[in-house]
Amino acid sequence: MQFEAKIEVSPRDGIANPEGSTIERSLPALGFEMTRNVRVGKLIRFEVEAESADAARSLVEDMCNRFLTNPVIEDAAVEVLET
Amino acid sequence: MQFEAKIEVSPRDGIANPEGSTIERSLPALGFEMTRNVRVGKLIRFEVEAESADAARSLVEDMCNRFLTNPVIEDAAVEVLET
Repeated sequence: MQFEAKIEVSPRDGIANPEGSTIERSLPALGFEMTRNVRVGKLIRFEVEAESADAARSLVEDMCNRFLTNPVIEDAAVEVLET
Repeated sequence: MQFEAKIEVSPRDGIANPEGSTIERSLPALGFEMTRNVRVGKLIRFEVEAESADAARSLVEDMCNRFLTNPVIEDAAVEVLET
């Protein structure tokens, strides 16, 4: 079966997020003063072939832990959808 | 009212995605041969203050078009949740 995997990678709380801080500092100068706590992460998507949704999810979580994310500084939220 | 905005920024179809291509080339060497079409984008999250969910959404879409994304090469999916 074919699944669509979506991984949301965000910096963990307490880890510096320079890209987010830069956006946050720039927003007021551009007329947007109502935003707070900007964080920028990564979004990884791909198609994966597996026996079942559970198998696909455990495969994707394994990929995350092994090399797609750095668990020391990043949190990953995995979503697997049947296509 | 306070809202949580989430923007998924992905490269448009047909636009090169070197980070995704590199991951896709590396996966088989690491034992994952069942993945295809890897795309890496950005995930921007922040808190926004607005009168209503509609106002928050139109504010965030305005930010996207003005400077958070490059509409020539990127697609943005905006999600606004009440907190």
